[in-house]
Amino acid sequence: MPTSRKALGQAGSPSSSMATDTCCCSPASLQRRLPILAWLPHYSAQWLKMDFIAGLSVGLTVIPQALAYAEVAGLPPQYGLYSAFMGCFVYFFLGTSRDVTLGPTAIMSLLVSFYTFHEPAYAVLLAFLSGCIQLVMGLLRLGFLLDFVSCPVIKGFTSAATITIGCGQIKNLLGLQNIPRQFFLQVYHTFLHIGETRLGDAVLGLVCMVLLLVLKLLRDHVPPAHPEMPPGVRLSRGLVWTATTARNALVVSFAALIAYSFEVTGYQPFILTGETAEGLPPVRTPPFSLTTANETVSFTEMVQNMGAGLAVVPLMGLLESIAVAKAFASQNNYRIDANQELLAIGLTNVLGSLVSSYPVTGSFGRTAVNAQSGVCTPAGGLVTGVLVLLSLDYLTSLFYYIPKSALAAVIIMAVAPLFEAKIFRTLWRVKRLDLLPLCVTFLLCFWEVQYGILAGTLVSVFILLYSVARPKTQVSEGPVLVLQPASGLHFPAIEALREMVLNQALKAPARCAVLECTHVSSIDYTVVLGLGELLEDLHRQGVNLVFVGLQVPVLRTLLAADLKGFQYFSSLEEAEKYVHQDPGTQPYNICEDLVPEHKVALLKD
Amino acid sequence: MPTSRKALGQAGSPSSSMATDTCCCSPASLQRRLPILAWLPHYSAQWLKMDFIAGLSVGLTVIPQALAYAEVAGLPPQYGLYSAFMGCFVYFFLGTSRDVTLGPTAIMSLLVSFYTFHEPAYAVLLAFLSGCIQLVMGLLRLGFLLDFVSCPVIKGFTSAATITIGCGQIKNLLGLQNIPRQFFLQVYHTFLHIGETRLGDAVLGLVCMVLLLVLKLLRDHVPPAHPEMPPGVRLSRGLVWTATTARNALVVSFAALIAYSFEVTGYQPFILTGETAEGLPPVRTPPFSLTTANETVSFTEMVQNMGAGLAVVPLMGLLESIAVAKAFASQNNYRIDANQELLAIGLTNVLGSLVSSYPVTGSFGRTAVNAQSGVCTPAGGLVTGVLVLLSLDYLTSLFYYIPKSALAAVIIMAVAPLFEAKIFRTLWRVKRLDLLPLCVTFLLCFWEVQYGILAGTLVSVFILLYSVARPKTQVSEGPVLVLQPASGLHFPAIEALREMVLNQALKAPARCAVLECTHVSSIDYTVVLGLGELLEDLHRQGVNLVFVGLQVPVLRTLLAADLKGFQYFSSLEEAEKYVHQDPGTQPYNICEDLVPEHKVALLKD
Repeated sequence: MPTSRKALGQAGSPSSSMATDTCCCSPASLQRRLPILAWLPHYSAQWLKMDFIAGLSVGLTVIPQALAYAEVAGLPPQYGLYSAFMGCFVYFFLGTSRDVTLGPTAIMSLLVSFYTFHEPAYAVLLAFLSGCIQLVMGLLRLGFLLDFVSCPVIKGFTSAATITIGCGQIKNLLGLQNIPRQFFLQVYHTFLHIGETRLGDAVLGLVCMVLLLVLKLLRDHVPPAHPEMPPGVRLSRGLVWTATTARNALVVSFAALIAYSFEVTGYQPFILTGETAEGLPPVRTPPFSLTTANETVSFTEMVQNMGAGLAVVPLMGLLESIAVAKAFASQNNYRIDANQELLAIGLTNVLGSLVSSYPVTGSFGRTAVNAQSGVCTPAGGLVTGVLVLLSLDYLTSLFYYIPKSALAAVIIMAVAPLFEAKIFRTLWRVKRLDLLPLCVTFLLCFWEVQYGILAGTLVSVFILLYSVARPKTQVSEGPVLVLQPASGLHFPAIEALREMVLNQALKAPARCAVLECTHVSSIDYTVVLGLGELLEDLHRQGVNLVFVGLQVPVLRTLLAADLKGFQYFSSLEEAEKYVHQDPGTQPYNICEDLVPEHKVALLKD
Repeated sequence: MPTSRKALGQAGSPSSSMATDTCCCSPASLQRRLPILAWLPHYSAQWLKMDFIAGLSVGLTVIPQALAYAEVAGLPPQYGLYSAFMGCFVYFFLGTSRDVTLGPTAIMSLLVSFYTFHEPAYAVLLAFLSGCIQLVMGLLRLGFLLDFVSCPVIKGFTSAATITIGCGQIKNLLGLQNIPRQFFLQVYHTFLHIGETRLGDAVLGLVCMVLLLVLKLLRDHVPPAHPEMPPGVRLSRGLVWTATTARNALVVSFAALIAYSFEVTGYQPFILTGETAEGLPPVRTPPFSLTTANETVSFTEMVQNMGAGLAVVPLMGLLESIAVAKAFASQNNYRIDANQELLAIGLTNVLGSLVSSYPVTGSFGRTAVNAQSGVCTPAGGLVTGVLVLLSLDYLTSLFYYIPKSALAAVIIMAVAPLFEAKIFRTLWRVKRLDLLPLCVTFLLCFWEVQYGILAGTLVSVFILLYSVARPKTQVSEGPVLVLQPASGLHFPAIEALREMVLNQALKAPARCAVLECTHVSSIDYTVVLGLGELLEDLHRQGVNLVFVGLQVPVLRTLLAADLKGFQYFSSLEEAEKYVHQDPGTQPYNICEDLVPEHKVALLKD
């Protein structure tokens, strides 16, 4: 098995070395836009077998999860399934990672519940618009915007989302009813009504959680398949592997069976999922207006109502799907094309909205199932997609009996690993300042996700700008005063630098100051002007300021500006020699080849 | 004269070496908050004489300018005078520069005309609120925010404002009437109605402009006073000096005299200033609501109507006043305290609003007059302030006869030097990228000033962020691959760096890559995480990544993060030696004193 997968990685991996090609019509470029062209010609029976098994495993995971996540999104259960197949088909053609599976996720479902008022029409329109935005970002190569969402912000958001989702499921786990959905009210009312816990739901929910946990632990200890295993061991290994991989389906089926048995006896101790619309979703354009009993909501109003969701959902969708793709590409030793991933997720959402999907993204949990099942190409997704379609066609009547507490158990077990409490400790140890964006994002996300992410990102950027605006400057007072900015010089820094150099130069006994610019890689006009003023200021105070260690672009800029009194040396030693030993000589080592006419423009007074 | 001024600078300059004091109740701190305490005890008769002459010169400049700028602001003429005296008195107590004079300026008047709908109540409230905002910024030491307005943005704004103001005065210069105030409409209608030019106004306006120009050129050639001059020469020099310094008052009086002569004959060829309210302004709280014939506008509505003006006016006021103070401090060799300047301008606006002033700031032109007249302390402002009050009390009936075209000439000659066409050429030569914020600001400021400044600042910050997000990285492929980021590493840069290092490392034949971090002065958690992932990525590809030239804070952070496979050397040579000559040895020169327990944590596979 590992051999065959490695073969794909070498021969026809969808991502092997396409990054250098730029022409848009060449075969290589076409292959880059349609990665399937790279691997399909090499497809083999061995891969088919592996892909089939992996697709089946993912399918058995996604069906119960989709039903559960629809509840998180506040939508009827079938919408989870409607959202679960389009990603498989689109990714089959466009995906650059063999492992990634697109579909409904817990965090995306939570976001959908925030911005779509539990109204399918909004959710489908949001999928369409998010997809369009993601496509535009992919086509305009705006993926770099994601670089500005720092790691503490992402961790703060996922931690808060995990807690929100987990707490939101406690009511279903315990069978509590009429609990509001807003986070703080939900927690408050859950505790207030804890006495109304329904015994049946609570017991079933906890049993399901324990079962899922045991199966997950078991899964982590299944030994890898080995050709030398005796057939009996191999069979039992296969059975355990199947049971543990499809544990969600297994546990939910088990719970549904119990509920059905009770139903037959005429007594139902569980709250059930209830009616799920039967059959495949209709193919139609997304709803560009919404007609309710009372009124018609126009497209513009719908867009206004969703507001910040139109920024948060596409952005988070991209972040999650690229994070998943990168994580597995790195783990399994291949490369992905981030902009191509943007296109894939964007097209999935646009096409998904035609079959009533809500916004989807890359699922970490199911991608892991896919990878662990030994998937070889994105073809595994086809099996998953078909399985979801079949379940919609034939199984919806059975979904009626799935107890809600069993689905709550599935969700809680799915999101629990996403919560990383140790990030707080890690940041305290490694970089305390980064706790600020983390905590800001974490806390504000409980109030409004968009404010949390926005505020966290702004805090990150402010910290960054602050460090750019106030670079540390090393001061050493020897025979001459040497000042060395520890990093680049940009316009917000120049006033403070000027102030600092002036203060230091006036305090020091030396009548010469050296500005060591080794770490300055480029300067802007504001800095040039500020340095010019600094030269004049110091000249009036009778202090000589010389520059040392200028990188070529910086020197070029300074020479072009023709500053009065500008002198530079290639090294500190030469500057000191010039200043102290022989004040009559000219500065050494002027890069004569650079701008010769400026050689004579040095101040001589 | 120079001696006496130097004496002040040494003995009791309001700003001499107060920057190090931090306690808020010590005498030094009190002196810092009330700079007058530093210089008043040393006050001398010689200074009094100089201050009196300077105050008089500034007064004779500010009175005609104030009348003219009120027209720019779209307010009745007396409001210019109401705004011209409070700054003198406040700065007497709080100012840290002897030269600066606060009062109405052309650019501030233009901003006021944008945001106050030619309604004095709005203008006075704007002064009050701007003052409060400036005071808060001064108290919270938020002056650093001004660092983020880059030089190209300021130049773009002043150039656009100069053109707007100048073009706005053409209609007054030519005696055109009923021209709209919006810039584009104004230019269009001025050209459309150019045929309706009134001969009298146009001739008078042009004559005034020529007179002002000649007097200004003469002013620049008056020789400095000299004790050895014969009395006759000295007297005529004094006369010329007075006439050229008070040229605005002189020209306006001359024009008013002509207009009065015509009035006596019964024929008036000029459009006159007309009725100016007589007497001192009433002292009262600023109008927190506005009652017009039809309706009452509440405070909230007034604030909403002024909108962005509440950000632009205080900000630009601060920028202008600090720029003026810094320019003259540098020129005349003393230091100012920027935060104290914020307090002075803020208090001026708050107290000014009690006497119906509109927002004021530091005036470049009048500060120059002040400095050239040899002012010794802020006491010169007292003379100016009293002169303005006297003119309000006794001269308003004479202001009736001032022709508008003469005032237009005063304004045009005052703003003309502010327009710097050569900045475009300079930027083209020195730093082409900075033309972008300049042009964005310049062009958008004709449409809406706040958008111009905001967009220009955002463009500046984006250019800055881009250079931070994509630092240039020097790659040298020798026996080992050496990658050296040319500046710091911050979170937006890490993904691109990781991608780049991976690409380079996979292309190069060498199985070892060196990341040269000499220019990296600090790293955040996102970068740490990215470097950790990079180490793992490369390790999987069989490439060894080692770090070189780590500054102590960076090393400390990386060691605290405990990255798997992290190896570092003090120099490139040692790294190369380790990699090539003796792969069995340990990395040299580990800073053992830093974090000894990490010494053994180096990867050994």
